[in-house]
Amino acid sequence: MTTEATTSGELWRDPSVAIADRVRDLMARMTVREKVAQLYGVWVGIDSAGEVAPHQHDLIVEPPSLDDLSRHGIGQLTRVFGTRPIAPDVGARSLARTQRQIIAGNRFRIPAMVHEECLTGLAAWQATVYPSPLCWGATFEPDLVRRMGEHIGRSMRRLGVHQGLAPVLDVARDLRWGRVEESIGEDPHLVGTIGAAYVAGVESAGVVATLKHFAGYSLSRAGRNMAPVSIGSRELADVILPPFEMALRAGARSVMNSYTSNDGVPVAADPAMLTDLLRGEYGFTGTVVADYFAVAFLYRLHGVAAGREDSAAQALAAGIDVELPTVDCYGEPLLAEIDAGRVDLALVDRALERVLRQKCELGLLDPDFSPEPDTDVNLDDPASRAMAREVAERSVVLLRNKGVLPLTGKRRIAVVGPRADDPAAMMGCYAFPLHVGVHHPDVPIGVEAPTVVEALRADHDVEFALGCPVQGGTDEDIALAVEAARQAEVCVAVLGDQAGLFGGGTSGEGCDVTDLVLPGRQEELLEALIATGTPVVLVLLSGRPYELFRQIDRLSAVVCGFYPGEEGAAALAGVLSGRINPSGRLPLSFPGAGSAQPSTYLTAPLGARSEVSSVDPTPLFSFGHGLSYAPVTWVAVEADAAEWPADGTCRLVTTLRNDNEISTTEVVQIYLHDPVAEVARPVQQLIGAVKVDLAPGQTRTVTAVLHADLTSYTGRAGHRQVDLGEVELRVGRSSADVHATVALTLTGSASRVGFDRTLVPEFEIGS
Amino acid sequence: MTTEATTSGELWRDPSVAIADRVRDLMARMTVREKVAQLYGVWVGIDSAGEVAPHQHDLIVEPPSLDDLSRHGIGQLTRVFGTRPIAPDVGARSLARTQRQIIAGNRFRIPAMVHEECLTGLAAWQATVYPSPLCWGATFEPDLVRRMGEHIGRSMRRLGVHQGLAPVLDVARDLRWGRVEESIGEDPHLVGTIGAAYVAGVESAGVVATLKHFAGYSLSRAGRNMAPVSIGSRELADVILPPFEMALRAGARSVMNSYTSNDGVPVAADPAMLTDLLRGEYGFTGTVVADYFAVAFLYRLHGVAAGREDSAAQALAAGIDVELPTVDCYGEPLLAEIDAGRVDLALVDRALERVLRQKCELGLLDPDFSPEPDTDVNLDDPASRAMAREVAERSVVLLRNKGVLPLTGKRRIAVVGPRADDPAAMMGCYAFPLHVGVHHPDVPIGVEAPTVVEALRADHDVEFALGCPVQGGTDEDIALAVEAARQAEVCVAVLGDQAGLFGGGTSGEGCDVTDLVLPGRQEELLEALIATGTPVVLVLLSGRPYELFRQIDRLSAVVCGFYPGEEGAAALAGVLSGRINPSGRLPLSFPGAGSAQPSTYLTAPLGARSEVSSVDPTPLFSFGHGLSYAPVTWVAVEADAAEWPADGTCRLVTTLRNDNEISTTEVVQIYLHDPVAEVARPVQQLIGAVKVDLAPGQTRTVTAVLHADLTSYTGRAGHRQVDLGEVELRVGRSSADVHATVALTLTGSASRVGFDRTLVPEFEIGS
Repeated sequence: MTTEATTSGELWRDPSVAIADRVRDLMARMTVREKVAQLYGVWVGIDSAGEVAPHQHDLIVEPPSLDDLSRHGIGQLTRVFGTRPIAPDVGARSLARTQRQIIAGNRFRIPAMVHEECLTGLAAWQATVYPSPLCWGATFEPDLVRRMGEHIGRSMRRLGVHQGLAPVLDVARDLRWGRVEESIGEDPHLVGTIGAAYVAGVESAGVVATLKHFAGYSLSRAGRNMAPVSIGSRELADVILPPFEMALRAGARSVMNSYTSNDGVPVAADPAMLTDLLRGEYGFTGTVVADYFAVAFLYRLHGVAAGREDSAAQALAAGIDVELPTVDCYGEPLLAEIDAGRVDLALVDRALERVLRQKCELGLLDPDFSPEPDTDVNLDDPASRAMAREVAERSVVLLRNKGVLPLTGKRRIAVVGPRADDPAAMMGCYAFPLHVGVHHPDVPIGVEAPTVVEALRADHDVEFALGCPVQGGTDEDIALAVEAARQAEVCVAVLGDQAGLFGGGTSGEGCDVTDLVLPGRQEELLEALIATGTPVVLVLLSGRPYELFRQIDRLSAVVCGFYPGEEGAAALAGVLSGRINPSGRLPLSFPGAGSAQPSTYLTAPLGARSEVSSVDPTPLFSFGHGLSYAPVTWVAVEADAAEWPADGTCRLVTTLRNDNEISTTEVVQIYLHDPVAEVARPVQQLIGAVKVDLAPGQTRTVTAVLHADLTSYTGRAGHRQVDLGEVELRVGRSSADVHATVALTLTGSASRVGFDRTLVPEFEIGS
Repeated sequence: MTTEATTSGELWRDPSVAIADRVRDLMARMTVREKVAQLYGVWVGIDSAGEVAPHQHDLIVEPPSLDDLSRHGIGQLTRVFGTRPIAPDVGARSLARTQRQIIAGNRFRIPAMVHEECLTGLAAWQATVYPSPLCWGATFEPDLVRRMGEHIGRSMRRLGVHQGLAPVLDVARDLRWGRVEESIGEDPHLVGTIGAAYVAGVESAGVVATLKHFAGYSLSRAGRNMAPVSIGSRELADVILPPFEMALRAGARSVMNSYTSNDGVPVAADPAMLTDLLRGEYGFTGTVVADYFAVAFLYRLHGVAAGREDSAAQALAAGIDVELPTVDCYGEPLLAEIDAGRVDLALVDRALERVLRQKCELGLLDPDFSPEPDTDVNLDDPASRAMAREVAERSVVLLRNKGVLPLTGKRRIAVVGPRADDPAAMMGCYAFPLHVGVHHPDVPIGVEAPTVVEALRADHDVEFALGCPVQGGTDEDIALAVEAARQAEVCVAVLGDQAGLFGGGTSGEGCDVTDLVLPGRQEELLEALIATGTPVVLVLLSGRPYELFRQIDRLSAVVCGFYPGEEGAAALAGVLSGRINPSGRLPLSFPGAGSAQPSTYLTAPLGARSEVSSVDPTPLFSFGHGLSYAPVTWVAVEADAAEWPADGTCRLVTTLRNDNEISTTEVVQIYLHDPVAEVARPVQQLIGAVKVDLAPGQTRTVTAVLHADLTSYTGRAGHRQVDLGEVELRVGRSSADVHATVALTLTGSASRVGFDRTLVPEFEIGS
């Protein structure tokens, strides 16, 4: 069969032709201006930068008319749904109109790719707000997160959105950083397995997942957003990069740069990162998109480029294929550089080929491509809400319980605190209501997000008192809350953060802090509630762990929810009232009295407790910690052999038994301890974890098949290697609660391993 | 003339023979055991580690008897004077006796080198306690510090001490770190120029200065002593190493390793640092000595060595020539490694050659060497005290003054606070009374160190009240202090640190903190004093800057003394009462409300104020800040040309005038701003500073001859380079108070520069 395309000689229009050939054919036909036009986004209708990027006012210029732009094509459309509240069907129709205009405008009828934020679900009005990434981490359940990602991806694809700017794979290193709430946790293995699962889900729906922020952002100095990063190549390789490696292997097709300069070099201008490593070592073939304004930041904030032209030239050479969110450097300035012979057209072609290949893969170049969306969309349908609920329920972490929980029967409860009765308390800073909605106070938030107060009212006799807002507050309000607590059997204090952007909250992008004291007067409120003598259950809804060590011994229970999403309150109430047996585990540590930042559990011996400093960094709650109403009995942990071939696997069998009368759940966590290595390695490091449900009376075996690659690290020579000799596997309930230590000897030949190494264990769960 | 030595064929005994030949001759005659014996120290008479190294109990073993050890020789004797309080003459005689025993014991009659701590003067009982290094930095006067170093060196040489373990050249990066008090400041140029001057002074007395800690220690994560360091090679090269380069060029003959692992690699096992860089690039020919127990820490704390043998092998191979303080790995374990063929004897010879060459240079191998010391020593003679006074007087920094200072005439003053009437308040943690004396509470501190109360009594009617101790305290004591303040015309609150070791203080080695709030109840005391309405002058005697931003607007004046030494109180009283016009400048910044750590003035743009973080890191008082009672008039700042040859110099002429009726002093500070570079450079960085005294009415010109090498930095390629193009010189009173900006264009050829580059400007001060 001969299609119209091949008849006309236009190979690129023919879906039966290999993608590489189609792209080559198309590129051969394009002018330089048409090529460059594919390398930037346009933010249509962004008339006020104040709405979503308050710090970049002067970079958001009204773009030239779409008519003008469309004549050469447009690479990306920026956040059609995520810029202001528009009904999904209206947005979808508007997007289709814009796409038709773009298609009609350029000679090749190439549509734009459309990207949106989607960290906690599509950042659009009326779309489901899912639990935030720390909750994903807390589930320790990649498959659950994969299913959530698939839900999110499908909702985007139906609207005509092709790319989602998630997940955030930054490994949390400093709790003061506002974007900790966007991270999955402080451990590379957890971040990588959960992040990769999210990617697999989104990509399975045909949407391009974007890995951010490649790489180093989370080490921003002193936790200040975008501050310079001190990092060596080994820490980068062993802590920061593994989640990206895992997510790339899960099929991610786009990568976004870190804003930061690492040891002086801004990533957006660093070919070592974006090309040598990402393309050369990892073999990545997708697109690298700029974090918003990151190309312009080279001349504006980093001082490494002389202006727009130079920024464009450096970013393109480094490996930034697409400038986002809108054209600043990659338009006329880049064309000028090309004209002047300062930018090789081959660099344009390199980026263009990636962009067009992706459009081709997505079907955008097919003759039958239609921009018409499914306009009959409910972005918050029951299935999505159920998905959000399931993740929330599996993510709640019970940190401490002196027996007061669960609150069985109908109780007289004072529910107190700024996060108790505010739907916003459930959401992170990339949820539409907080990311965009806050600028439209007259528009409803668009989704139903019950509060803890509302959810608990179904079970109990609830008296609510604010106590204090997240920040500020009055003595009178605190007194009213104290009075409410006095009158109650139990006081549930719901404290934490207001997520927001750039100073608009107490956590979130640009909302960094200098210490980890609960914001505002909340600690004072907590002290006042404790002083009543009524048992106090603290529920923390926050973007980061806070200091609880001063109150911990006087609290009856502590439950951590991070931001559990629009269905989070039901999940929390389920845990508090005992319908749900909590199974979440901490994806990052809670600070103890001496936990100065930066600090995570992942540290060489001298970063842990030692006699050489007056500051004891022992956390209050350690990575991996989480309690259950029905503790699992650990029966045995056994390896199949004392020797572990350096090119093979060991089998580690853990036997668990549920001696309780209710179902329960355990997270079997396997940590590596390497007593002697070429470099100072972490005392312990997670190399595998699996969540196991057990029916009452059930005994289950968990077999972990661990490849020796999991012991690898970056040695003196700068490459990743598997050493011979002794290692220990520490198997237990958390990084601080090791049930068994298994000594093994790696034997055979030491070896160098790379991107294709085994990254995760295989688990077999016996019935 | 034929000496006895050459007659016997023993070239090494002949002072007329070239040192290299003498050493070669001697080495050829030595057994392996004799060779190895030269590579460690012995801590004679250290019977309880608790006294000076509380965290290393089990590493301090009673050494074999000196008789046994002496049969093979001994490389070093550790702290004969600095271990417990002994009278200098007694110590000197004891040392001579030990040396005679060592000399008599080994075949070659080689004495031990003797080392002592000497950071704030020789750390010995009854020796002058000089101002601490932050005071040296505050003087901004290298020549003054050089003269002090010479005094210190002479006092050591007279006793038979050959090596001093100072200066500390770590550039302060995190104010929480306890050893900030041992540093010279947060700027590499200041640390380097002042540190090099100290070295020149000590070495001019014939004593080996030891540069510590090479390199990276000050970045210990979260300010926790010895914690792992995240650092890239560029930050290392541009921030941490320059002071070492300067001090090596000033003639330092020994270097001590940093305890830390940098990006995973402990320096004590890092040939890249200790050999490739130090020997290869810098051409250093002196000795590298281990920081105390650092060789053992490879197996004990870092987890990079399997045991003593492995630690010895790795440290020796890396480039640690001498194990200190006592033999743990370099004795039998090293011999075993050599026997087993796992350590090449060439590595032993490499270290040995350095050790013997130094002993030879010091005259220890000469036939007429006599261990007999000058026993008629007064280690705290009037000349030394005068020297200590001069440094103290030039180091006091007036941070703020609302006009209350100077306190002219006789006033009724309440002098309040834990640091007001305690001689220890004048001293850092390496001063003998605090380093060692604290373990001998029944022994007097050995020097006269007047307190602020005592010094002010000479001028004023003084009422003293404690208020509170450095840590802890009672409401009653605070109330008494408040009452004293109420009764007074002025209240002088003397607050700050108790220096100590490993938890024995609030600042000092191992005394790290998690925040920068004044220790104990001192801030509460300060608030209570302010509340009286009596003008409060705060005098800070501390090892680090503390948060003053909450009180600053309500304080009448603030004076910073750091630890000004035994003559410090007189200097402070002189400033307070107006006899001395303060001329010190801050060697590090005081934190503002958002100054989360780590943070110094030396940061790329994104680490300074920007709209991208809610945390504003602007300091309360910036690097280089300091007021005078008689401000200098800045008349003009002019460059001799707009172009600056990239291989040459520019001349920058600053004209100052003293319009006051008293003498005064200015520190002309020259900062470099490089608007566009290959990497994100500091917004501004000190490249030259000079202190100028001006008589009343005097006009002086300060000509800085600035070589373009001073603009160099480590570029993308990893080497230090001078770029062409625009730079700005910002000339002013501090990093935050720039008087003039001079734009210059570097012209000619860009170039690569190295260790031999020009490191400091030349200054010509017109009369």
